[in-house]
Amino acid sequence: MTARTPLYSGVIPPVVTPLTADGDIDRASLERVVGHLLDGGVGGLFALGSSGETAYLTPTQQDEVIEVITGAAAGQVPVIVGAIETTTNRAIERAGAAAGLGADAVVATAPFYTRTHGSEIDRHFRDIAAAVDLPLLAYDVPVCVHSKLDPELLLPLAADGVIAGVKDSSGDDGSFRRLAIGARELPGFSLLTGHELVVDAMMLSGADGSVPGLGNVDPHGYVRLYEAAVRGDWETAKAEQDRLVALFDIIRAARPGTASATAAGLGAFKTALMLLGVITTNVMSPPMRSLDAEETATIAACLKRAGLDV
Amino acid sequence: MTARTPLYSGVIPPVVTPLTADGDIDRASLERVVGHLLDGGVGGLFALGSSGETAYLTPTQQDEVIEVITGAAAGQVPVIVGAIETTTNRAIERAGAAAGLGADAVVATAPFYTRTHGSEIDRHFRDIAAAVDLPLLAYDVPVCVHSKLDPELLLPLAADGVIAGVKDSSGDDGSFRRLAIGARELPGFSLLTGHELVVDAMMLSGADGSVPGLGNVDPHGYVRLYEAAVRGDWETAKAEQDRLVALFDIIRAARPGTASATAAGLGAFKTALMLLGVITTNVMSPPMRSLDAEETATIAACLKRAGLDV
Amino acid sequence: MTARTPLYSGVIPPVVTPLTADGDIDRASLERVVGHLLDGGVGGLFALGSSGETAYLTPTQQDEVIEVITGAAAGQVPVIVGAIETTTNRAIERAGAAAGLGADAVVATAPFYTRTHGSEIDRHFRDIAAAVDLPLLAYDVPVCVHSKLDPELLLPLAADGVIAGVKDSSGDDGSFRRLAIGARELPGFSLLTGHELVVDAMMLSGADGSVPGLGNVDPHGYVRLYEAAVRGDWETAKAEQDRLVALFDIIRAARPGTASATAAGLGAFKTALMLLGVITTNVMSPPMRSLDAEETATIAACLKRAGLDV
Amino acid sequence: MTARTPLYSGVIPPVVTPLTADGDIDRASLERVVGHLLDGGVGGLFALGSSGETAYLTPTQQDEVIEVITGAAAGQVPVIVGAIETTTNRAIERAGAAAGLGADAVVATAPFYTRTHGSEIDRHFRDIAAAVDLPLLAYDVPVCVHSKLDPELLLPLAADGVIAGVKDSSGDDGSFRRLAIGARELPGFSLLTGHELVVDAMMLSGADGSVPGLGNVDPHGYVRLYEAAVRGDWETAKAEQDRLVALFDIIRAARPGTASATAAGLGAFKTALMLLGVITTNVMSPPMRSLDAEETATIAACLKRAGLDV
Repeated sequence: MTARTPLYSGVIPPVVTPLTADGDIDRASLERVVGHLLDGGVGGLFALGSSGETAYLTPTQQDEVIEVITGAAAGQVPVIVGAIETTTNRAIERAGAAAGLGADAVVATAPFYTRTHGSEIDRHFRDIAAAVDLPLLAYDVPVCVHSKLDPELLLPLAADGVIAGVKDSSGDDGSFRRLAIGARELPGFSLLTGHELVVDAMMLSGADGSVPGLGNVDPHGYVRLYEAAVRGDWETAKAEQDRLVALFDIIRAARPGTASATAAGLGAFKTALMLLGVITTNVMSPPMRSLDAEETATIAACLKRAGLDV
Repeated sequence: MTARTPLYSGVIPPVVTPLTADGDIDRASLERVVGHLLDGGVGGLFALGSSGETAYLTPTQQDEVIEVITGAAAGQVPVIVGAIETTTNRAIERAGAAAGLGADAVVATAPFYTRTHGSEIDRHFRDIAAAVDLPLLAYDVPVCVHSKLDPELLLPLAADGVIAGVKDSSGDDGSFRRLAIGARELPGFSLLTGHELVVDAMMLSGADGSVPGLGNVDPHGYVRLYEAAVRGDWETAKAEQDRLVALFDIIRAARPGTASATAAGLGAFKTALMLLGVITTNVMSPPMRSLDAEETATIAACLKRAGLDV
Repeated sequence: MTARTPLYSGVIPPVVTPLTADGDIDRASLERVVGHLLDGGVGGLFALGSSGETAYLTPTQQDEVIEVITGAAAGQVPVIVGAIETTTNRAIERAGAAAGLGADAVVATAPFYTRTHGSEIDRHFRDIAAAVDLPLLAYDVPVCVHSKLDPELLLPLAADGVIAGVKDSSGDDGSFRRLAIGARELPGFSLLTGHELVVDAMMLSGADGSVPGLGNVDPHGYVRLYEAAVRGDWETAKAEQDRLVALFDIIRAARPGTASATAAGLGAFKTALMLLGVITTNVMSPPMRSLDAEETATIAACLKRAGLDV
Repeated sequence: MTARTPLYSGVIPPVVTPLTADGDIDRASLERVVGHLLDGGVGGLFALGSSGETAYLTPTQQDEVIEVITGAAAGQVPVIVGAIETTTNRAIERAGAAAGLGADAVVATAPFYTRTHGSEIDRHFRDIAAAVDLPLLAYDVPVCVHSKLDPELLLPLAADGVIAGVKDSSGDDGSFRRLAIGARELPGFSLLTGHELVVDAMMLSGADGSVPGLGNVDPHGYVRLYEAAVRGDWETAKAEQDRLVALFDIIRAARPGTASATAAGLGAFKTALMLLGVITTNVMSPPMRSLDAEETATIAACLKRAGLDV
């Protein structure tokens, strides 16, 4: 549909970070997650995204995650690594670490915690790109950073070669459409959607690929969805998406009012992967709690209804 | 795609309210807008929506608008009328007025200005439905009322026959998808999207029709988009939508920082209709200003680029 | 402390609107509320404020409220009346009604429901002031209208004679302080705080008076607080305020998660007035529910602890 | 006014972090800032607060700041150090570093970037307190972390000895008052306000001290304000506060629309300190720009008007 050949496309799940009972990185489980995703036919791996509990991991833990994922991926697909930090120098430090550990690209958000301004966000991306010798993707995630990255800001950065693509988790589909149209002629530019419930619709709007947290649980489903959309079989894409929307109900397993949306959502992904035999525990980083036996049973039932083999 | 036969479908533009130079309802222009939309093949008319400056019109002016639109529509398509008021008794009063003036259905939002609660929103819709003998649609517009109508609230209201449909301007496409899936088996239920920039994507997600403000300017385009989507020709739908996204740039004609998004957007629609010869002035309700000659020239250029005959 | 003689000062409670069991205005109870407040020594009455359920009342009901309050006040204190509507023409219509029914001043907010802009808010107040031959106060209530009225907007309006004062319920005490300092030389300007929990602190900051919802329940307390602050006895003012903060716990009587903050707060004020024998019912406007027997008992206990005679 | 003897009281400025032209920590300037503040009579120093550009500094830079400040303070006043990180393990890591570098207490916010929940915020503070052998203060700063710390959450933490105090920058003065009343009997508990424009009012409400960013520029003024309030001379406190509000206008020196509020505010503090001869440059951390010559001249004029010797 577009004149460009995106650098990154297909399904690029934000890889969850399994933990041991003691809260350490569970390297063996993380390797199995990577294997599970590669088996599913993913087009890349996004390490240290929001679904990877990036905001919960110390720099040392983050390094370990990058090392395990790049090792397990072994060059089969590109590994995109989050350098998600409050401001420029901190993001550069993490992006440099990622580069040293074998990342293929890095991802940064707008500054957060502090109040910011369009001109500062612009400089933020330019400074990171100048400091790190890897492609840089912009991550638009206002629910976390409380700033929106508008096409008016992103398209000049793309045209100037500062950013190689965008991961859009903004929920602003009008803005996404304008970005897709504006980036149509930019060679290599990659437009990825994080809206796991409407990947079909966002691909119709112009996405090159998706970054679905739920893709950790059912990579095959998201790959079928992607392939159907690419060949223009929108009915099949829609049916697959509808099935995945039903599967997404696992995030409602946590008893209402007892956990954050993050703990409920990521906790459900981990619990599902545990039930599928991919990872060993569903332990969450503090201060989040893990889902309990009753909640786990709810998730097991949901997986079965969606046709996944528990 | 669904088991149901929606009561309302197709393109149902939120009809703009033309004003005379003195700020009165310009009845002749409003009749011409209705004619322009009927010529375009619309499936209904939404009177007194946000794009109709409903929040700017006194009750007397609102009555006049309903009267002119229902008169001009003359039963050719259903006329859905906004009863958009802060709370229940006020909305009932306006819904009753609409019923008396020939409306086919009424539309209400969640309570606003005041803080509200799920249980109160639920009662709000139930009380309105009980008081007015017309189908009731729920209008989900958090940018205006600062509450989101979740599927968990709407689907029981639909199942109980309280609401006949939803006009979604929430921008939350995940929620929209869950609503579409949940309402699939409800006979007659109508799911309308207000996201004029992604009507194709929202129809793929399950919308029965659209309520595009920009549809005032180019009803033919939105009708072509709708018809392509209905017959499964998503490439044509997408191309038409992309053209309309470019046309939507008219809302950026207002000089930055000099007007609200409402004044810039509705002002652009009115100015375009004036340039197209449909309405006489582009006068806006106070306290909004009208677009000036320079801004009007920008819009004229944009209309020409989109292939509209100025 | 200031060079000016404020037009309005002292305690000016936002008068609650008692309803009959059928939801009509309870005129006799409303007259008793006015008597109760006058007995308490208030310096004015604010009719049709947020605490008066203004957003819940139809225009006819609003007219009735104005009529009863101005009648019962009988010129003893000024009656300030809310003309709280979405936009300019609608506010002017209500302000005109208030003027015709004996109001001494009117109060308007920024436009709401619709998105707005500083230049439009400025025009909004200027148009209302030009249309109505009564002093106009600006009501800064971002929690309801989602726009903040900054000193940079308000002070020019005050200097130009457009607004005679401000009722501040913004919760932004830095902005309030800057407004107080900026208005110090404006003769007649009245700066009223709606922060019922920190009236002492806001008077130290420069308020001329207060508009406390809780003042419906305990006008004597707020008047003692005011008088202590005026004579510079801040320890007494603080002690009185601390007692009133404890009394304010009545708003937590509603069972958590079962009502909006508005229903819980105004419901508590009405229930307290019912327990004090001032009004007949604690009926709330739809879609709010009334507090029940158990919640009423909680409030009764709280009133006793605060030394009020139930 | 209260039964307790707060552990921390008086003026405890959030120390700015001077940078060299190359963006490194300017150790000599930072030592002079500490000397300037000690000369002013401050009761403590808050290192690595929002005004210290904490969100802009790498861990290595943060360590250097702590080392310089604790060294320069040399035990004359307590040094409270921010461990402001997205989540628990990261905050513990920074709190541990602070403890090792001589901090007297640490300060943490609610988790940010990620979505969170009351139960998780509670565990967050408990885990940090358990891991670090220093008093812990909770920093309530919703403008940065987008969660509010309510008295219902804080008071149990205080009663359990988890937190030794609160630094309130919430702008919610009603909540602050309820916290002050609720903590009245807790020995040692310290309630500090960050509302630099209304320190007098917040001390009347029950604050034990203040953490004013502007206190970097004029510590003597804030100390005079504090001492007047402590002795109950509220007129003097108010007059001093009013003078400081005028001085605070330096934050409006940045040309409108060209910088974030953070860059404008902290940039003004740094520029003022440069003009006062305390620090060498007004360089800001990327991606913020420094104020330029024209903006610096505006600040110089403002300092002179406030009686500061430039």
